[in-house]
Amino acid sequence: MDVEKNNKNKKKIKADLPSGFRDADPRAMIAKNELLKKVIEAFENFGFDPMDTPAVERTEVLTGGEEESSKIIFNVRGSRDDKSDTSLRFDLTVPLARFLAANTEIPKPFKRYQVSKVWRGESPQAGRYREFTQADIDIVGSSSMEADAEIIALINDVFKRLEIKSFVIKINNRKILNSLPSYAGFSENSLLRVLQTIDKQDKIGYQTIKEELEKNLDTESTQKIENFLKINGEAEKKLDQAEILLPNTTTTQEGIAELKEISRNLDAMGVARKNWEIDFSVVRGLGYYTGPVFETILTDAPELGSVFSGGRYDNLLIPFTGQSMPAVGASLGVDRFMAILEKLNLLQTKATNLQVLILNLSPDLRLDYLSLADRLRQNNINTDIYLGKDEAMQAQLSYALKKEIPYIIIYGDDENRRNVVAIKNLRTREQTEVEKSKIVEYFKVK
Amino acid sequence: MDVEKNNKNKKKIKADLPSGFRDADPRAMIAKNELLKKVIEAFENFGFDPMDTPAVERTEVLTGGEEESSKIIFNVRGSRDDKSDTSLRFDLTVPLARFLAANTEIPKPFKRYQVSKVWRGESPQAGRYREFTQADIDIVGSSSMEADAEIIALINDVFKRLEIKSFVIKINNRKILNSLPSYAGFSENSLLRVLQTIDKQDKIGYQTIKEELEKNLDTESTQKIENFLKINGEAEKKLDQAEILLPNTTTTQEGIAELKEISRNLDAMGVARKNWEIDFSVVRGLGYYTGPVFETILTDAPELGSVFSGGRYDNLLIPFTGQSMPAVGASLGVDRFMAILEKLNLLQTKATNLQVLILNLSPDLRLDYLSLADRLRQNNINTDIYLGKDEAMQAQLSYALKKEIPYIIIYGDDENRRNVVAIKNLRTREQTEVEKSKIVEYFKVK
Repeated sequence: MDVEKNNKNKKKIKADLPSGFRDADPRAMIAKNELLKKVIEAFENFGFDPMDTPAVERTEVLTGGEEESSKIIFNVRGSRDDKSDTSLRFDLTVPLARFLAANTEIPKPFKRYQVSKVWRGESPQAGRYREFTQADIDIVGSSSMEADAEIIALINDVFKRLEIKSFVIKINNRKILNSLPSYAGFSENSLLRVLQTIDKQDKIGYQTIKEELEKNLDTESTQKIENFLKINGEAEKKLDQAEILLPNTTTTQEGIAELKEISRNLDAMGVARKNWEIDFSVVRGLGYYTGPVFETILTDAPELGSVFSGGRYDNLLIPFTGQSMPAVGASLGVDRFMAILEKLNLLQTKATNLQVLILNLSPDLRLDYLSLADRLRQNNINTDIYLGKDEAMQAQLSYALKKEIPYIIIYGDDENRRNVVAIKNLRTREQTEVEKSKIVEYFKVK
Repeated sequence: MDVEKNNKNKKKIKADLPSGFRDADPRAMIAKNELLKKVIEAFENFGFDPMDTPAVERTEVLTGGEEESSKIIFNVRGSRDDKSDTSLRFDLTVPLARFLAANTEIPKPFKRYQVSKVWRGESPQAGRYREFTQADIDIVGSSSMEADAEIIALINDVFKRLEIKSFVIKINNRKILNSLPSYAGFSENSLLRVLQTIDKQDKIGYQTIKEELEKNLDTESTQKIENFLKINGEAEKKLDQAEILLPNTTTTQEGIAELKEISRNLDAMGVARKNWEIDFSVVRGLGYYTGPVFETILTDAPELGSVFSGGRYDNLLIPFTGQSMPAVGASLGVDRFMAILEKLNLLQTKATNLQVLILNLSPDLRLDYLSLADRLRQNNINTDIYLGKDEAMQAQLSYALKKEIPYIIIYGDDENRRNVVAIKNLRTREQTEVEKSKIVEYFKVK
């Protein structure tokens, strides 16, 4: 072929991905799809409807005009005559706020889920990816603690559907944490750093946290923070103790009352007490949260960090509308979650969704293979015919084994004469012969 | 709140999308998900497994080093210290070629589907979008015409599953078209332009095509092309006539033999003759196709163009490996397809996947609403509780109507006393009362 000849002399293009990006081969993608199917069923069961926004947004929308966040985004530029400043979204919450600010007619409360890719343009580092899938749920337009409880109950339901038993959803309230300076006697300016430190308790343990706190706070303040963090017992008991310990301000009272309400709501929704707890060390970054916050850890691997987290954020529409809007939500980092499940051996994978491969053994029977495939497919049996170059049965069998296809169908001239097909289960290596007309029934009873 | 006060004085950010981009609200997204579910079931039934590649590729991979294609792509730039030249993919076929060139160990034939977004960075025009979803199927590593027939049979199956009856898959072969210069007596240099012209037959009709051809070709050539395009009858008859008409070259013979084989294969797979035909005017762009090509039109609206099209392309790996690799595939432009279905009133949409909204009528019963919701959800009934500010039943009912939720549950103090719930069907406006314990059964028999 001319094209081939011409191109052989051309410089070859490297088949590389940009750093920080990766493919999902069929095995990875089948696992992801199966996980997302269950996740989405839970989302819809709780009354969340799907929504989608474009990958590309105006840069100003994403950054809120702030320099800091523009450092982690990918800038996008189209043809030369397109002067707009656009970027790839880095989360799904800002696009949701933009969507709601632009579509004020949408009835509130608005419950939506979005399962989409997001991108972070930061410098690629070992093991850090720059594209990942997020599954977000948000309730916008409700200030009721039933909304917060629904998000938590839904997280619980997702784990149940995925048959993951060892997990805890840890719940706290930013309104409670905000009282720490006046309670422990340190300046408001240090709050951010103190929160960043106590947020690490799950990962590094209290002793290390204490040492870090002592670098900046006096012994009395550190001791008071320790007293606060070491409150224990059932949810109500913890909250009652915090109420006694912390200063009696409106915000603190509100924060405690909100968590008590969430607690009652979770009980009413049948969320088992072993799957959630009040944890005063939960902070959830330093971003936009304004009330209850929560994160989920797998109790077999708390050091791997939290996986399905969120909280209440009432201010996200302000940059667009100047008005606050009550909202609460959570986000599942799908790829990181899958990596953790894999580490814990909780991820079942398979190489193919195929059930049957029909071997292509006789040139005279090629049309028979096609009509046999048609019959199996019409009966919802995922079927393939070997369409490669190898004519030898051994080579085709080895193809089926490499692809981990559960069954092969052997139908050569001999089987044709006897009007049967041989079916081989490649897991058990058992081979059966069935009448050609009974083949669908054979797979149906599997 | 301080944040709110501060932000009220700030310049508001416009909640606009960049031009050429759009959101999919729940109604659009529910319709898309339902369509894709059926499409994907068909793909997997035919033995295609899912795969995913990143949105961002090295620019050189996408353009093959050619200036021309770089005009339609979005350039992507991360943090300043990242010097790589990357762009958003504009199709899913080039990333597939890159993936296979990088992963040579993958058993061939390789059958995969990919449902993902692609982006075109061309200047935004009225009604032209710059982000769209494609659903691609490809078989790589098979030169057998059974592969081409499988792709066509799968397109047929997708339409059957979507319950679309009026469609035709039009099939041609580039190998046949390549004989036109020697057959009709015009220069090889004019072939491209002639093909571009005859490709428009579906949209503008033969008479207009003829006028366009006459501008560049002499009367005899135009007449010969007309004779070729006007060949009619059943598939085999058309092919036999073409065989007589066209010059007896190896390529032409191959092209005709391939289509005859596809025809036999389609019969064997039970693809109804009314749903496919040989159409010598099908060209499929001017790109990388090397053999059979096909496109699908909705017979009620041929002027809207083709919707699920593809063909054989054996040279796509050459830029990476220097070697050709047999491949055949097709691509469904999901958004355009949905727009066409909507025009033809073939798209059923709904505003929500919710089945039931529990009204929030009595503050004393809020925990009961939560446990009622839990019970319904546990029985796979998609359920929501009204969590907004409006306490009046009328306002909550109007919310349910706006959201087009099929049923509401009315459970106030009176119903609580009598241990019943009232269920109102918002479509028929019928209201029934059932025992509280029978509520799941009520929805189960629906």
